[in-house]
Amino acid sequence: MSNEKDRVMKAITPKGTDYSQWYLDVVLKADLADYGPVKGCMVIKPYGYAIWENMQADMDRRIKETGHVNAYFPLLIPRSFLEKEKAHVEGFSPECAWVTIGGGEELPEPLAIRPTSEAMICSMYAKWVNSWRDLPVLINQWANVLRWEKVTRPFLRTTEFLWQEGHTLHETEAEAEEETLKMLGVYKSFSEEMLAMPVLHGRKTDSEKFAGALRTYSIEALMGDGKALQAGTSHNLGQHFATAYGIEFLGRNQEREKPWSTSWGTSTRMIGGLIMTHGDDSGLILPPKVAPYQVVIVPIPPRKGDVNEAVLPKCREVMAALRGAGIRVHLDDRDQQMPGFKYADWEMRGVPLRLELGPKDLEKDQCVLVRRDSREKAFVPLAGLAQKVGELLATIQSGLLENARKFVADNTTRVSSYDEFKQAMAEKRGFIVAGWNGDPAIEAQIKAETRATIRVIPMEERPAACIVTGKPGREVYFAQAY
Amino acid sequence: MSNEKDRVMKAITPKGTDYSQWYLDVVLKADLADYGPVKGCMVIKPYGYAIWENMQADMDRRIKETGHVNAYFPLLIPRSFLEKEKAHVEGFSPECAWVTIGGGEELPEPLAIRPTSEAMICSMYAKWVNSWRDLPVLINQWANVLRWEKVTRPFLRTTEFLWQEGHTLHETEAEAEEETLKMLGVYKSFSEEMLAMPVLHGRKTDSEKFAGALRTYSIEALMGDGKALQAGTSHNLGQHFATAYGIEFLGRNQEREKPWSTSWGTSTRMIGGLIMTHGDDSGLILPPKVAPYQVVIVPIPPRKGDVNEAVLPKCREVMAALRGAGIRVHLDDRDQQMPGFKYADWEMRGVPLRLELGPKDLEKDQCVLVRRDSREKAFVPLAGLAQKVGELLATIQSGLLENARKFVADNTTRVSSYDEFKQAMAEKRGFIVAGWNGDPAIEAQIKAETRATIRVIPMEERPAACIVTGKPGREVYFAQAY
Repeated sequence: MSNEKDRVMKAITPKGTDYSQWYLDVVLKADLADYGPVKGCMVIKPYGYAIWENMQADMDRRIKETGHVNAYFPLLIPRSFLEKEKAHVEGFSPECAWVTIGGGEELPEPLAIRPTSEAMICSMYAKWVNSWRDLPVLINQWANVLRWEKVTRPFLRTTEFLWQEGHTLHETEAEAEEETLKMLGVYKSFSEEMLAMPVLHGRKTDSEKFAGALRTYSIEALMGDGKALQAGTSHNLGQHFATAYGIEFLGRNQEREKPWSTSWGTSTRMIGGLIMTHGDDSGLILPPKVAPYQVVIVPIPPRKGDVNEAVLPKCREVMAALRGAGIRVHLDDRDQQMPGFKYADWEMRGVPLRLELGPKDLEKDQCVLVRRDSREKAFVPLAGLAQKVGELLATIQSGLLENARKFVADNTTRVSSYDEFKQAMAEKRGFIVAGWNGDPAIEAQIKAETRATIRVIPMEERPAACIVTGKPGREVYFAQAY
Repeated sequence: MSNEKDRVMKAITPKGTDYSQWYLDVVLKADLADYGPVKGCMVIKPYGYAIWENMQADMDRRIKETGHVNAYFPLLIPRSFLEKEKAHVEGFSPECAWVTIGGGEELPEPLAIRPTSEAMICSMYAKWVNSWRDLPVLINQWANVLRWEKVTRPFLRTTEFLWQEGHTLHETEAEAEEETLKMLGVYKSFSEEMLAMPVLHGRKTDSEKFAGALRTYSIEALMGDGKALQAGTSHNLGQHFATAYGIEFLGRNQEREKPWSTSWGTSTRMIGGLIMTHGDDSGLILPPKVAPYQVVIVPIPPRKGDVNEAVLPKCREVMAALRGAGIRVHLDDRDQQMPGFKYADWEMRGVPLRLELGPKDLEKDQCVLVRRDSREKAFVPLAGLAQKVGELLATIQSGLLENARKFVADNTTRVSSYDEFKQAMAEKRGFIVAGWNGDPAIEAQIKAETRATIRVIPMEERPAACIVTGKPGREVYFAQAY
């Protein structure tokens, strides 16, 4: 493409100079997304969408393996439905986009574009559920949702985004809690196994929980600038929504009961986390498991003669062999670009392995493999190549997770006083482990004074004196959040 | 489930009594969809959505194999964008839902929920395309769209529906036309190979073409009531949209040129076609290739003793063996329902094969297989079962297509006078092949007098005198349309 040169050759802003600009540069120059005409609504370009498809396929498998099925519920929610759960409408109504005209006429009641689907789905569940034999209901939906945001950034916070939202009903509180934590676990494994993005997991404080939830849990990743990204949430909604939407069932004891509900979601936001967890000053670094191309083949033209005759047939052969082994390969046979340009281009796009093949390599029945993460270069015989590539991809995948874990460890500070806390926030931020007495006023004070919020209350309780009041409390994880 | 009994045991309206009511009964009782709170917006229930997922996976593969990639464009389109192509906005504006309030404030410009994405996508293409080297652009999107409809019916015509929409750009008219016809061919093969739904294909008349298109092609299926269903469309958009949205590229000759664009789509409407092509008075009949479950195992309890001990372990073993062979199997181990109830239930849901396994079968190392389509029953040895089941599923798939082809042939009438035409329309409808002189006024007259519209102008031209005017013309296919 003619505008390729500009895209690749203009260097991106270094992370150290302006992290936020670095992020935007990578998103645009790696061709992941573009700005659409409506503020905050991004276009996910084919390369970015291919990452999402790989993520989606794997997440969908995990969701189904834990017993859930997919369905699809309407986009538009009548205002009166949204208003049934008081905390829910207070939380989401200010962010709603309202349809007021349809088919050329003003509507009798405004319809919200779903900011999330509890209101819609619970109103259907009220119709579907009659007996304890109908439980549990374990449904997931892949959909677009819309929240009117003031400040937006591609993937991280967009007005429209793509996500999956699970909505379940259970007979007992214990089962609902088990489901909530099970899906939190699914999100954690997905994040670490697929995205190589380590996450903390735990419970949210009341001030950070989902509008209408009894308890919210989340997974939190640490970005390169020391800020935390909430990468997935799982809510035990108690009986709040069943009460608001009139879901009842005839229990085993022949009495009318209210089910317990949960909801849980992950979104295209995770792609933002992926970029910031692994990227460097040359662009994106993709974990092999979600990379659209795991290997890109760059043919090296001979000094004399035609690349089409000398090198390309062998490149195609190698591509076929790797594809046959289930590896996602792209052959960059653009004839108007030099190899050096192609290297920079695919580095920007974060392809895990570059495979160079030229006339000299052909003579020796070998190729050159270059890792995107470590830039290590190796001459590898073409015989047994697929196996070697498979091993290297696995090494890269686990290496990325290891590096990211090390980064989290290096950027997690345990403090025992508010002064230490402030110093850590002023210097490198990261996760700060500190004692808190459970008082929302203290939480608010810390946020106002340092921008740090409690990201999670860990599942395991460790006693610690509150850093502000000195009163008895427990350890929680603070960070400045995206 | 406690409400299962009602759902299954109340018979559905026979096709012969009221076809339209039969259709709605099947949709609801086979648990495919339900009505949502907003008129015309249906809920696709898990069983219906699983059919869509099977269709989607296969269609997505075909779209990618023909060189396309997926992307995602925003839901909301500013009014001014929609207005750029005159015919397009005239066609779609009356059907739009408009967002006028966002984030608590009235918007400076109303935003349409996409009725289709040409306006959005072409405005992005204008930004992305600069040179002939950027062409072709071959992008597809899976998305929800919204068209405010007055009369709606689940799957067939809904305000919101799910679809894929391809949007491509080409250097020349010939390439655009080739693409348009290639995708029409993909739709035809998909429809016949996956849905076992035979379709006519051809060009639309000007009065039936897409708002803004140069030429529209479609595939048309014939439903059990003799009405035609437009099941997919492919449009050569000429340079209309490139002109309206300012897409230009530097050509090979270094001059500014306008690309030619196409768009093509298929939707959840196809599920409606599937239901009406194969269903009978006992409910749905699903072609094995898209059936969520291809085989359902119904354990037959022993007269004495526990089904859990006697039969279920063997059922699980059989299920594992079939699954191992890539067959989608469900074991109906509900303990509160009798086998007869389960038979009726799975017949209603159209599962291609029922596998019964009871104590007597166990003694003989066999099971009973019952076909949903022909109701043929066979005793089959458990040894080699997976192969036998695979063969039967293939037989059912091809048998359904054959039956449907026969129905189309039996319900296609070639007429040579307008009287014969009217008689055919009054009696059994179906496809009517008749001469037409190409005059839109005659087309309109026939529609007003008989409700029949020209479904397609076949690709191959066969001369025939116009049935109304007697003037020279060509054969076209008429039918009353959904």
